Amino acid sequence: MKYVLAIHGGAGTIAPGVDETPYHAALKEAAAAGEAVLAAGGSALDAVSAAVVELENCILFNAGRGSVYTSAAVQEMDAIVMDGKNQAAGAVAGVSSVKNPVLLARAVMEKSSCVLLMGAGAESFAREQQFEFTPPEYFACPKRIEQLRRAQAKGSGATLDHDGSNLPAVPPEPPEPINPDTKYGTVGAVALDRDGNLASAVSTGGMTNKRPGRVGDTPIVGAGCYANNASVAVACTGTGEHFIRSVLAHDVAARMQYGGATLAQAAHTAVHSKLSGIDGDGGIIAVSHDGALAMPFNTTGMYRASVREGESIVTAVFGSGE
Amino acid sequence: MKYVLAIHGGAGTIAPGVDETPYHAALKEAAAAGEAVLAAGGSALDAVSAAVVELENCILFNAGRGSVYTSAAVQEMDAIVMDGKNQAAGAVAGVSSVKNPVLLARAVMEKSSCVLLMGAGAESFAREQQFEFTPPEYFACPKRIEQLRRAQAKGSGATLDHDGSNLPAVPPEPPEPINPDTKYGTVGAVALDRDGNLASAVSTGGMTNKRPGRVGDTPIVGAGCYANNASVAVACTGTGEHFIRSVLAHDVAARMQYGGATLAQAAHTAVHSKLSGIDGDGGIIAVSHDGALAMPFNTTGMYRASVREGESIVTAVFGSGE
Repeated sequence: MKYVLAIHGGAGTIAPGVDETPYHAALKEAAAAGEAVLAAGGSALDAVSAAVVELENCILFNAGRGSVYTSAAVQEMDAIVMDGKNQAAGAVAGVSSVKNPVLLARAVMEKSSCVLLMGAGAESFAREQQFEFTPPEYFACPKRIEQLRRAQAKGSGATLDHDGSNLPAVPPEPPEPINPDTKYGTVGAVALDRDGNLASAVSTGGMTNKRPGRVGDTPIVGAGCYANNASVAVACTGTGEHFIRSVLAHDVAARMQYGGATLAQAAHTAVHSKLSGIDGDGGIIAVSHDGALAMPFNTTGMYRASVREGESIVTAVFGSGE
Repeated sequence: MKYVLAIHGGAGTIAPGVDETPYHAALKEAAAAGEAVLAAGGSALDAVSAAVVELENCILFNAGRGSVYTSAAVQEMDAIVMDGKNQAAGAVAGVSSVKNPVLLARAVMEKSSCVLLMGAGAESFAREQQFEFTPPEYFACPKRIEQLRRAQAKGSGATLDHDGSNLPAVPPEPPEPINPDTKYGTVGAVALDRDGNLASAVSTGGMTNKRPGRVGDTPIVGAGCYANNASVAVACTGTGEHFIRSVLAHDVAARMQYGGATLAQAAHTAVHSKLSGIDGDGGIIAVSHDGALAMPFNTTGMYRASVREGESIVTAVFGSGE
């Protein structure tokens, strides 16, 4: 079986006339990190973990280092991994200062009896497992601070309970192709390895100016992430509450497994009918047990990349993912 | 359309020769509270909320007042509600000292832009919404303290990071029909109202001696709870991690909606094949859009009750729920 990998860096609306080059380069680098694992005969689980670590370490994307701020001007990150072989899963919600939340999610899966750990309990587990914590400067991102200030000025997001005065001053930065104020920031990866195993991983900083304690779809099995060797691996990005309510990642799998849909049909209907039907915005990346790939989104763009064994990495921001 | 309501108070293994009477009485009272809403022409959403509030207020069940303790000897409660009409949902994870977590979950649904709020953020929202908080004595339950001590002595549960020395002394109590040490404590309700609307609500204290920050299936849409007027309302109880990994509540709905299964087939297969297939234990209560009812479980007992319009409330602990 030939390997397939896809990654995403969030979906949103177009900011026209902006240089996309650094985003294509970053997506290619993350896809290459995942592909290197698969090309060496590694597992889909290791490949999606490696790709998401790269995306978390890149300041361009809203996960790990580039995470957005809550209304209290702190970062609360969520992450998840799921193994299609046995539906093992691990996830964390609301962690701060852990360098790579996706690796902590994987440790929850492999080294605890839990699937989902939140907040202080998740960080306590990270310390037990001797995880790398980073100083606040690592996560202090001028671009995200500016986004929080704009959101609070507009009154968007949850509550305006903090003026961000604990945050550093903001130097000007070049604009992003996808408008960061209406971008649904998540990063994710799905893969099929040579042994026919599927896996999915997702990581996010959530929404700018979100209410402290708000958990989106990312760390929820079936909502932001799902993997089952019998059907498909799915990773989502968008307005998290709508993905939770429509159990969107599992919905794609169920349409295939119980309804006999192809991946293309299941992914299209889930995004353009089920998600759009409750006014949700975003997109998904999905790879099926037989190597089909779909990346539909109902926003005007989604940062994404994909690669098949023996072919080159393809990156994209706009256009269609179907 | 005639109304239907079902409730549960947890599933587990038999403790033979114990007086079941107080449990039947408590189940009947909670079912009656839900039925009163439906009989007055109220909504399924109001009915499941009313039934779960009764179960939370009853010290016999592991939710609200009767919640079990974490390994740190505190109570961390989870709750959720979902409206089948529009898939609106609200949930809280890891809240302490809120008297009725299910009502807080409902406020998240109706008065915030979030679906899931956790920990301090959820309690902060509760204070904004002027929710009733209770003193520690309200939740201080001798039976649960004894369970925590037994679990810690056996080394079961998460970690033994607390000796429970902050807890009051434990007077002897009568035994429970379902062995509390192997009972998966959750309470839940599902209903179909006269207008054809479905709803589901679930509340829990989680697992005795659980790791602080551990979140089970209860507050997860699609895992412990799901409702969709097109198919079914489902409420689950059992080993939460297995329900999360199998997206069990949504799995029942998907088997009906995409696979054409009847409720009886979908519920049976989800519990006895999908859940049992990954070594999960527990049960579900489910009512379909056309008024069918199923309450399968793969444990030896599940506290449960049901009622149809014009019929009497039926309560049960053992036997078959199918």
